[in-house]
Amino acid sequence: MPFAEILDKYQYRVNQELENVFRAILEDAGKLGGVYVDYYRNLRDFVMRGGKRLRPVSFIMAYKGVGGKDYESIIKASPSIELLHNSTLIHDDIIDEDHIRRGGPTFHIVYTDWFEQKFSGRDSIRFGEAMAILGGDNLFELGLSILTKANFSSNFLLQAIDIYRETYKKICEGQILDILWENRAEVTEEEYFDMISMKTGSLFVGSPLIGCTLGNGSPRQFELLKKYSLLMAQAFQVQDDVLGTFGLEEETGKPTDSDIRQGKRTLMVIKAIEMSSAQDKKILLKTLGNKKAPRDDVEHVKKIIRQTGALDYVKEKASNLAKPAIGEILKESEIFTAEAIEFFSGLAEFVLNRKL
Amino acid sequence: MPFAEILDKYQYRVNQELENVFRAILEDAGKLGGVYVDYYRNLRDFVMRGGKRLRPVSFIMAYKGVGGKDYESIIKASPSIELLHNSTLIHDDIIDEDHIRRGGPTFHIVYTDWFEQKFSGRDSIRFGEAMAILGGDNLFELGLSILTKANFSSNFLLQAIDIYRETYKKICEGQILDILWENRAEVTEEEYFDMISMKTGSLFVGSPLIGCTLGNGSPRQFELLKKYSLLMAQAFQVQDDVLGTFGLEEETGKPTDSDIRQGKRTLMVIKAIEMSSAQDKKILLKTLGNKKAPRDDVEHVKKIIRQTGALDYVKEKASNLAKPAIGEILKESEIFTAEAIEFFSGLAEFVLNRKL
Repeated sequence: MPFAEILDKYQYRVNQELENVFRAILEDAGKLGGVYVDYYRNLRDFVMRGGKRLRPVSFIMAYKGVGGKDYESIIKASPSIELLHNSTLIHDDIIDEDHIRRGGPTFHIVYTDWFEQKFSGRDSIRFGEAMAILGGDNLFELGLSILTKANFSSNFLLQAIDIYRETYKKICEGQILDILWENRAEVTEEEYFDMISMKTGSLFVGSPLIGCTLGNGSPRQFELLKKYSLLMAQAFQVQDDVLGTFGLEEETGKPTDSDIRQGKRTLMVIKAIEMSSAQDKKILLKTLGNKKAPRDDVEHVKKIIRQTGALDYVKEKASNLAKPAIGEILKESEIFTAEAIEFFSGLAEFVLNRKL
Repeated sequence: MPFAEILDKYQYRVNQELENVFRAILEDAGKLGGVYVDYYRNLRDFVMRGGKRLRPVSFIMAYKGVGGKDYESIIKASPSIELLHNSTLIHDDIIDEDHIRRGGPTFHIVYTDWFEQKFSGRDSIRFGEAMAILGGDNLFELGLSILTKANFSSNFLLQAIDIYRETYKKICEGQILDILWENRAEVTEEEYFDMISMKTGSLFVGSPLIGCTLGNGSPRQFELLKKYSLLMAQAFQVQDDVLGTFGLEEETGKPTDSDIRQGKRTLMVIKAIEMSSAQDKKILLKTLGNKKAPRDDVEHVKKIIRQTGALDYVKEKASNLAKPAIGEILKESEIFTAEAIEFFSGLAEFVLNRKL
């Protein structure tokens, strides 16, 4: 089965399981009171609004790829990964003051709007952020709950939980660098890769490694999946930065000026600062992180990123990461199932060519 | 050994173990970079600044009380409980915009101040809150890490992790009611107890139940510890509300006007609204939740709470909760160790008489 079909098939199963998880949570919430029904319905709507489910599908594929046979149980466990991911998205959106995610309001804006309508505005953003801090907390523990109760041996589950937790730790630590660097003029390419390896890489690496662990994969399978995933994740993030600034808002579901106004030190920005004239560099540093920068200045920054060749540089970089990623997984392709090889090599190509 | 000595002894051991946990974390952080050393040192300082360690000591006591014998392992696991607690404190302090905790700055204010000094103020509160969202996230996973790696059988650990997680879930859900009700005129006594049972009760109940689970306690031991802890926790929270508004700031380590300005629906406030004249009720509702209320109005609210008899009512209520709590644990005192009986009955008295 070609990559696109594998992704479609398991995306569908993951979404079904996510719906099941929220159905059960909403039933429980009904006993507690209407507030909780609204709350968990809002969390459900946020999670179900979109998302490619690349991480939970990688989790399933790694399990099956190393020879795991309990398909029903692994699919049932797969929402854990997606919920961890969404937990960190909700907290990140507060931190970055982002208002749009997947074409709809971010979670704190859902509750900011709700509060504004109900209590005519006083402190509405604070309220929204408070609900989103808790919402992120709850999604993480909900994911943990699924993993803890999954139908695998206790020993495997404890190992899986430890990777799940360590993944969350690294994402938070990566996020710390990301926000600290918004106030630093110069960040090196090496530092950028260290940061995204934590912030984005952790979960792209953690997902297949948890699957591999539950499927009783060998140390060599574990190692190759790890190497592959880190390279693939780096390609993903480099490309994600490109789409964030140069993609179409209708497709990516988020505003294309957000990273620039936030002052994110993306690889494009790092290279543009490095490769620009003294005058352009001034414009870059003045606009980056200025939340009220006029539209023209933001466009000027984009122009500089193009003209200096920074955009071409990072596009090539992404491609130069995806290829060795595929190399890692093909190195000993006989130790994985054919389906897993098809999926993981297809995924590395997909992250380069995607539009959203 | 009398209660005070038991508490002292294990408080000391818990603190030692917390220091060990942070020593290891800081060593790891040193390999990652100076940013992380500062970050985890700030988290360490926040956790070590104070706190009575009632929850981790209850965790140890329940384990020993049901006949658990691996003292070293249970003490080594005890920081998990305290870290979960501190995780929720850090997030709560952001939500409540509290600046003082245990006589020092709250965690988001630590980083607000740091940012202000370093970058002269722009966006400093946002930065502080961002770091504190992540700080709370990291403490929760750090506690989970200790539990996951603890020296008990995998089956027991999975059960323990599930209670640990469910505890966190309930705390978040309780916090949701707490902030929602800041904007509601009338909250009933029953609703108040539902809310504090989640927000405060969860961890006071969860801590001994995790200990009991790891010590292979019987269903009856589990049940009695659960009943006891819920009543004791309610007494604790009612008393905590009293101290929050009528205690001495030097002793409680937090400002006594914070709950009133925040509009917290404490039992005192609920009863005062219920028992006050139409005119006083107006003053109450005007001042509660008004962050800029003049000092005189706040004092007036306190006067109304005293004069209506609301203060006496809640003091008696706390006492009327602590006594049946002790009753539960004494019901079948022979199924617990003498030390545990001494500790848990002493604890229920302690929560009434404490000044901080």
